[in-house]
Amino acid sequence: MIIGRVIGRAVSTRKDEKLLGTKLLLVEEVDPRGAGSGDMAVVADHLGAGPGDVVLVAQGSAARFTAQTKEQPVDALVVGIVDMIRFDGRSTFTSADGFGSNGKGPQP
Amino acid sequence: MIIGRVIGRAVSTRKDEKLLGTKLLLVEEVDPRGAGSGDMAVVADHLGAGPGDVVLVAQGSAARFTAQTKEQPVDALVVGIVDMIRFDGRSTFTSADGFGSNGKGPQP
Amino acid sequence: MIIGRVIGRAVSTRKDEKLLGTKLLLVEEVDPRGAGSGDMAVVADHLGAGPGDVVLVAQGSAARFTAQTKEQPVDALVVGIVDMIRFDGRSTFTSADGFGSNGKGPQP
Amino acid sequence: MIIGRVIGRAVSTRKDEKLLGTKLLLVEEVDPRGAGSGDMAVVADHLGAGPGDVVLVAQGSAARFTAQTKEQPVDALVVGIVDMIRFDGRSTFTSADGFGSNGKGPQP
Amino acid sequence: MIIGRVIGRAVSTRKDEKLLGTKLLLVEEVDPRGAGSGDMAVVADHLGAGPGDVVLVAQGSAARFTAQTKEQPVDALVVGIVDMIRFDGRSTFTSADGFGSNGKGPQP
Repeated sequence: MIIGRVIGRAVSTRKDEKLLGTKLLLVEEVDPRGAGSGDMAVVADHLGAGPGDVVLVAQGSAARFTAQTKEQPVDALVVGIVDMIRFDGRSTFTSADGFGSNGKGPQP
Repeated sequence: MIIGRVIGRAVSTRKDEKLLGTKLLLVEEVDPRGAGSGDMAVVADHLGAGPGDVVLVAQGSAARFTAQTKEQPVDALVVGIVDMIRFDGRSTFTSADGFGSNGKGPQP
Repeated sequence: MIIGRVIGRAVSTRKDEKLLGTKLLLVEEVDPRGAGSGDMAVVADHLGAGPGDVVLVAQGSAARFTAQTKEQPVDALVVGIVDMIRFDGRSTFTSADGFGSNGKGPQP
Repeated sequence: MIIGRVIGRAVSTRKDEKLLGTKLLLVEEVDPRGAGSGDMAVVADHLGAGPGDVVLVAQGSAARFTAQTKEQPVDALVVGIVDMIRFDGRSTFTSADGFGSNGKGPQP
Repeated sequence: MIIGRVIGRAVSTRKDEKLLGTKLLLVEEVDPRGAGSGDMAVVADHLGAGPGDVVLVAQGSAARFTAQTKEQPVDALVVGIVDMIRFDGRSTFTSADGFGSNGKGPQP
């Protein structure tokens, strides 16, 4: 899985019928300190993630191993909304405080 | 899924029999502002996308989770024709106006 | 799928028994104007492609969705021999004329 | 599979129900001498790996071929904790001594 | 599939039970002239490949389409030991002579 930040969404009305009603988010991969990689993908979501949320994205066939997506033509799915990232011995992200300033993150 | 722009097509008469009648588009990946990445792929299409259309492409096994493609040897499929992209708080693409000039997109 | 050019082959006698009799081509990915990317892969072929042919290659599990390959440990397969590539409004490749000189391709 | 080093973890309470109780590690890919590649991923673990451990990570659908993960939406899994790496004729890593100093590793 | 050279191995005693008894090789991808790419992976092997051997590696789900690996959590497998590579009209590798000196390979 990768860590990403929700930065937008895509809307499509002419789409495969199995995707009707599925929210499609635009997600940018971020590193454990919150720096964006520039890599972006359109990711299905059934957990209610919104703009700015930090999420876990499962890629490939893994995206279809949930009750909602098992027959959908999706290759990327939000499988978790991140509460905390622990990196190199300390917290670099919490949902309350976001990524720390200066890349230092909230104190442990 | 990735966002791509239809830039051409490939024609093949000697091909696997399961691909007979399947349209194969040439698609370039684009970012949410419409800049091409240079990465191109041949993508199956059953939605009727045409030159210049901005599309959602599912990659890998996801490409076979539709009624039309479920037994086909395809690793990339148009699963949606994009109507609108919302990125960083505003619309950067609509099917009516395309990507905005100067990378600013149509106003929200 | 990607577009590639057949540039050689690999021969292996000590191989998994399911691969006995399967031709393994060396293929380099090319762009729609015929420029090689430098990325090469060994690709199974049951369509009779030969040196210099421009082919469509399906990657990943897609390579096993044909009658000949469905139980084989292959991750790349020639699924078509390309007759024509149309890119940016004109033909850049035909099987008769190859890729055009100066990157202009045969006239439409 | 790739070789990685456990450098942290991700915590998510709002996640797909199939992931409840699954530990999610942050892993950085390393080369056989222990140099980090900068590529990081969130990886499921049922073997009890901890910070600093050197692990084998299976990616893609392979991550679901264990008793614990077979129905989970995971695309990366710790499938082994590495005891020894032999590279270019000598040991470059042992679980007792870690990666050797100066990239030379413990003596064989 | 890719062409690789066996450059070492990884040993793990704490691993998923389905991997018990499976040899795990360290393999570096090489081009058709034998130049290493720097990309390395841990690859399962049931064909008896050893250090220095040039091998064909199947990646992804393809790695599980053999009698020995069909239920294993492996994403890369040696599916052939290479006897000969033919590239650009001549042999660049034979198992008897290796890759030719000066990148010219043995004569055809």
